[in-house]
Amino acid sequence: MMNLYRIAVLAFAMGCIIPCRAQGEDEASDRATVRHFFDEALTKQQSYEWLKHLCLHIGPRLSGSKNAARAIKWVKDIADSSGFDNVHLQDVMVPYWERGPQEMATLTDSRGTQHPLSVLAIGGSIATPGGGVSGQVLEVESLEAAKALSRLDVEGRILFYNPKFDRRNIMTGASYGANVGTRSSGAVIAAEKGAIASVIRSVTSSNDDIPHTGTSAYREGVKKIPAAALGVRSADLISEIIARDPDAILQLKIQSKWNEDAPSHNVVAEIRGSELPEEIIVVGGHLDSWDVGHGAHDDGAGCMHALGALRLLVTAGIQPRRTIRAVMFINEENGTRGGEKYAALAVQKGEKHLMAIESDAGGFTPRGFGVSASDAQREKMQQWLSLFPRNTISYFSRGGGGVDIGPLHRADGTPMMGLVTDTQRMFDLHHSAKDTFDQVHPREMELGTASLATIIYLLDKYGL
Amino acid sequence: MMNLYRIAVLAFAMGCIIPCRAQGEDEASDRATVRHFFDEALTKQQSYEWLKHLCLHIGPRLSGSKNAARAIKWVKDIADSSGFDNVHLQDVMVPYWERGPQEMATLTDSRGTQHPLSVLAIGGSIATPGGGVSGQVLEVESLEAAKALSRLDVEGRILFYNPKFDRRNIMTGASYGANVGTRSSGAVIAAEKGAIASVIRSVTSSNDDIPHTGTSAYREGVKKIPAAALGVRSADLISEIIARDPDAILQLKIQSKWNEDAPSHNVVAEIRGSELPEEIIVVGGHLDSWDVGHGAHDDGAGCMHALGALRLLVTAGIQPRRTIRAVMFINEENGTRGGEKYAALAVQKGEKHLMAIESDAGGFTPRGFGVSASDAQREKMQQWLSLFPRNTISYFSRGGGGVDIGPLHRADGTPMMGLVTDTQRMFDLHHSAKDTFDQVHPREMELGTASLATIIYLLDKYGL
Repeated sequence: MMNLYRIAVLAFAMGCIIPCRAQGEDEASDRATVRHFFDEALTKQQSYEWLKHLCLHIGPRLSGSKNAARAIKWVKDIADSSGFDNVHLQDVMVPYWERGPQEMATLTDSRGTQHPLSVLAIGGSIATPGGGVSGQVLEVESLEAAKALSRLDVEGRILFYNPKFDRRNIMTGASYGANVGTRSSGAVIAAEKGAIASVIRSVTSSNDDIPHTGTSAYREGVKKIPAAALGVRSADLISEIIARDPDAILQLKIQSKWNEDAPSHNVVAEIRGSELPEEIIVVGGHLDSWDVGHGAHDDGAGCMHALGALRLLVTAGIQPRRTIRAVMFINEENGTRGGEKYAALAVQKGEKHLMAIESDAGGFTPRGFGVSASDAQREKMQQWLSLFPRNTISYFSRGGGGVDIGPLHRADGTPMMGLVTDTQRMFDLHHSAKDTFDQVHPREMELGTASLATIIYLLDKYGL
Repeated sequence: MMNLYRIAVLAFAMGCIIPCRAQGEDEASDRATVRHFFDEALTKQQSYEWLKHLCLHIGPRLSGSKNAARAIKWVKDIADSSGFDNVHLQDVMVPYWERGPQEMATLTDSRGTQHPLSVLAIGGSIATPGGGVSGQVLEVESLEAAKALSRLDVEGRILFYNPKFDRRNIMTGASYGANVGTRSSGAVIAAEKGAIASVIRSVTSSNDDIPHTGTSAYREGVKKIPAAALGVRSADLISEIIARDPDAILQLKIQSKWNEDAPSHNVVAEIRGSELPEEIIVVGGHLDSWDVGHGAHDDGAGCMHALGALRLLVTAGIQPRRTIRAVMFINEENGTRGGEKYAALAVQKGEKHLMAIESDAGGFTPRGFGVSASDAQREKMQQWLSLFPRNTISYFSRGGGGVDIGPLHRADGTPMMGLVTDTQRMFDLHHSAKDTFDQVHPREMELGTASLATIIYLLDKYGL
């Protein structure tokens, strides 16, 4: 018994010593590799330099536009010259909506005083008839409140959704999500009640008067009416005026148009796996953006994160076991056609993905990853937390991913995860003229690039 | 035996169940309180509103200046009207250095071409003689390199410290710390070698040409020579020119002066403890700033953090067990007289502090606390981590505190801790004309206020 006991103790001790040493060596090597990723990202700032070109030399790039085509060509060119094994395009037809040359909203009160308002058509909105639409304004706080209105009250009026952005959520995306329905579905609900147009308070945490656009959809069988977003100060002004002067008239003019679907592309860049080339780790962002600002945080940063992460694997001299793929998806903003095409092709070819990763939370300092995978898989990743430098990634939380990788996740169950950044500033500028290159800080952004390279490296080395 | 065993198991089980329930109740109440802190901070944004006044209506406030006196009066007034039990001033004499009306640096090359440079006298520098000083420039990479120079090479020249900011440190303070000696001691080392003036590359992570000041000290027995900081582009320009044209002449003009020490004050605001009033938790920032910009992040934000944290205890209706004290220290930047006076008075009165906390890392999103206390105390605080909302405080690391609370820590061993923020942007603007109110984001800043209220609440409730 004693002997057995001693052997057991010894075995236990050995069991600790031997794997610990092996783990120690791996850990030292992992730490050196991760250190390379961060040093290289912070000193060279290549993702940031790429983003500068994308923002300042190409600019906004809504699906179907000439600028989107220029961006695709440019990204393919830089990927071609970055030492990857394979760079190619995936063809995909995308919706092509265009903003018109003039957009205007004015509130005229009963005394005839005109109050010019700050306005931006919501993406997908039809144009107003030549002279615009004019009508009294009915204000509601939510989609639910609109649904409860009687048709008699709404008919012939402009419905005005004016919910405030909830400042309490530390994850600002929750507050965005709570109100974004007014933008995506507000016009449908309004039209069902007989409204002649729908306007919303921009879904933003900012307190200035810059309007924020975004996508919306009409519903078959429901009349299409124009839809526009107002700056929050304009929204407050309307609210104040109509409270005392319900006969004030809002005039809205939008000149947007829908074109035929246009040919476009996802850009795919690969480093081929040395041991398990058939197993893929994909990391992506979306190359299309809204047609105002530069699409810097949303999502130029995410694309340059993905491409930059692959570049860091190359500069570290890593021969990945699995195939590592960066995808700059097209059409996240108003159709998800790129993400759907990627998933369809993957299923068609029988590709096997270990993990799909997306960066679409802006080029802000990384905080964690949101993971849609099994608890066991997430717990395995949590073991790697100590490899991320302090003040970068500090958790792997349950739930997360991205709009572009969602179709793959749903099609074949590929686990997915999204980079979570410090989004306190995100919804100040998201989908507005303020989402410009100067709003991105090189160090904050590059910490994201290196964090993505780190998780890709670990996923590739240790699997799930 | 069996009975004893069963009793032991039962006792163990009970031991788990009973404290767990008590802990459960406490935890729910703690979570509700913490939720209040964050909700109130993020919705009211009172610290941010106070900071706006301090920055836009008072502005920079170097020790001894009229603006510093205005800031002290204003802070006392708002503390007086915030529902605290006791607000008072601590008298302290502070050094009073003043920048002159004109500062100028020009490099004239051998062909007579004049290159104007961006320059700011280093705090504490003497003035140059009427027409300024002129001389050839000798460039070095560090204090150590300067110490190794022969007197013959330096004599009659201007010594130019030009170390680059190391981009690799994720904690940017480490890169700042590595180079800041050129600013604080560069003139002394240069004078010892016979230099007629000392200029430095600004200690900054930025890549523009705005110069960054800060404090310096002369050494008794060493000749005082003028000392100035150059914008990094000006520093690069000098470096390039003198590499090919060592006879280029740098002319430097500084008109600063030293006045007599001036009377000033720390501002102290207290909520008196209900059970252990003699035991104090102190939280502070420093009210003085450099004389350029607004002193917004450094350290208007820290002062408004401290005062705002006390305000959150009041709005939550908390009657603390211990005395909670906010101190807006004077003279952190060029003397630490406020911090020393606070410590001296505490020792003199035999005050007992449970913890001293400082916020002097800017109004950026909080990441953790750096703690100088026993491991057991730090581990106790680590048990509280789950009470901090995700994406706020994620660690209590070993080592940390603040310049103003350091004297108390050293005098009587009071544990101390400092708020660690996301400092990627800090050294772009620190001590420069760029440290202005518009560089502070309300949400990022208020997360700091609420994090401080949370740690104060927990320290007060559970002790150490």
